[in-house]
Amino acid sequence: MSTEPTRPLADLSRLCVHTITTKPWPLEQAADAYGAAGVKGITVWRDALAGRNVAAAGERLKQQGLRIISLCRGGFFAHVDGAGRQAALDDNRRAIDEAAALGAPLVVLVCGAQPGQPLARSRAQIQRGIEALLPHAEQNDVRLAIEPLHPMYADSRSAINTLAQANDIALAVGSDMVGVAVDVYHVWWDPELESEIARAGRAGKLFAFHVCDWKTPTVDLLEDRGLPGEGCIDVRGIRASVERAGFNGFIEVEIFSKHYWAMDQEQFLSRIVEAYRTHV
Amino acid sequence: MSTEPTRPLADLSRLCVHTITTKPWPLEQAADAYGAAGVKGITVWRDALAGRNVAAAGERLKQQGLRIISLCRGGFFAHVDGAGRQAALDDNRRAIDEAAALGAPLVVLVCGAQPGQPLARSRAQIQRGIEALLPHAEQNDVRLAIEPLHPMYADSRSAINTLAQANDIALAVGSDMVGVAVDVYHVWWDPELESEIARAGRAGKLFAFHVCDWKTPTVDLLEDRGLPGEGCIDVRGIRASVERAGFNGFIEVEIFSKHYWAMDQEQFLSRIVEAYRTHV
Repeated sequence: MSTEPTRPLADLSRLCVHTITTKPWPLEQAADAYGAAGVKGITVWRDALAGRNVAAAGERLKQQGLRIISLCRGGFFAHVDGAGRQAALDDNRRAIDEAAALGAPLVVLVCGAQPGQPLARSRAQIQRGIEALLPHAEQNDVRLAIEPLHPMYADSRSAINTLAQANDIALAVGSDMVGVAVDVYHVWWDPELESEIARAGRAGKLFAFHVCDWKTPTVDLLEDRGLPGEGCIDVRGIRASVERAGFNGFIEVEIFSKHYWAMDQEQFLSRIVEAYRTHV
Repeated sequence: MSTEPTRPLADLSRLCVHTITTKPWPLEQAADAYGAAGVKGITVWRDALAGRNVAAAGERLKQQGLRIISLCRGGFFAHVDGAGRQAALDDNRRAIDEAAALGAPLVVLVCGAQPGQPLARSRAQIQRGIEALLPHAEQNDVRLAIEPLHPMYADSRSAINTLAQANDIALAVGSDMVGVAVDVYHVWWDPELESEIARAGRAGKLFAFHVCDWKTPTVDLLEDRGLPGEGCIDVRGIRASVERAGFNGFIEVEIFSKHYWAMDQEQFLSRIVEAYRTHV
């Protein structure tokens, strides 16, 4: 919200950046730049680990002073056929293995949907998929966060489109290992947001908090997110809600943007830090 | 849904097409083509009336055997300043005048939103705006339908993003002149859809039903809608829901699509009729 006062003294001790946010950078370059900029946390996307020894990559991040907040992403449990669902479980187990090797305590789940398959059926498959993963998650001490996705992704990316639905499944699964990830981009419009954040908090399910902004106009459904302050989302208000609900973890900047990926990434990172100080 | 059986004998007695669906055609050409194709209803977008005597245009449509189902669109009640809200009311009164002159019994409302203004404040402005219009609507015997818009339009087009919210406002206004318009594109993802359709039906508020489809991938937030059957929406299932709830009015094909607008419109109209017979 451009009308908010700036907070020049806001510290960066809870600022995390997703590697996908600075996609042009290899993991090592991102880690060096984040550390130099004062960023204290990193969430690693799996593509950033390609061709690397995962444990060594994790050590490299920690040497840079970065806390590893989560691994993105598992999920995609919904499939028309059983073979697809089984392949998804296998891949999710690999994601948990990678998280454990990396030193990430959390895997974020984009839960999946299949065009034309009823959303309720996909949600049932999602719940069964998460339940099937539980032993492996417990064994590796890696938690799982269900991220509700904006309804514009209900066709093929996630049948979980509100925080209420994410809470419902997290509570139905009934394990301390399973919670929710709140991304302002996906949930800002939801009239039940405040009450569902409170509900997640009471249940100890607020595992992650992601920020960015919704630009007007938005010209691409996937890759036109804005920096906090650049759009219509009351990022600070939602931050206040999750903190009232007990969340005190890292605040993760996750931006997919063709526009920003085309920019000099050092300059972009400076703008991220400034946006965080001013609008989060 | 591509798995639905075809119904080759489905008649066209309840098929309505929106003029915007065949945007390249002037109103008169659209009317002639709709009539020749067996389409029985037309919803007129206000831009299609530009430069015309509205009453004469209405007569022309009726001579072609077309029922005039509604005028699209009024609304945009949400503004930061009072002057903007007053200008919106003035424009909505003109829309009601146009509907009355045209012979349209209904104006569809895209209710508006202002980036950065809290959605709850916009919804309060929308309700007050509709209430302010009521005397003019009653005087002209023109009804108003609140159309909830998909949450991806919550930034600047509508702060009413679920059928529950549309029902809430229609019921709060408490006039027989005010109901809701259900467009499958906006509401298909909503877990409360079935119960809210039933609620609208019980209250006598189901004023309009619009169909199209959600394509995967969707490449444009505004102008990439599909024909029924081309996407993931269970159009026939939602039609069954509105009919169970008592709706027996026209079924309106409203498609914004750069792709289809670039096509020969006669061929496109044939595909609309075929899609209606097969997937609606």
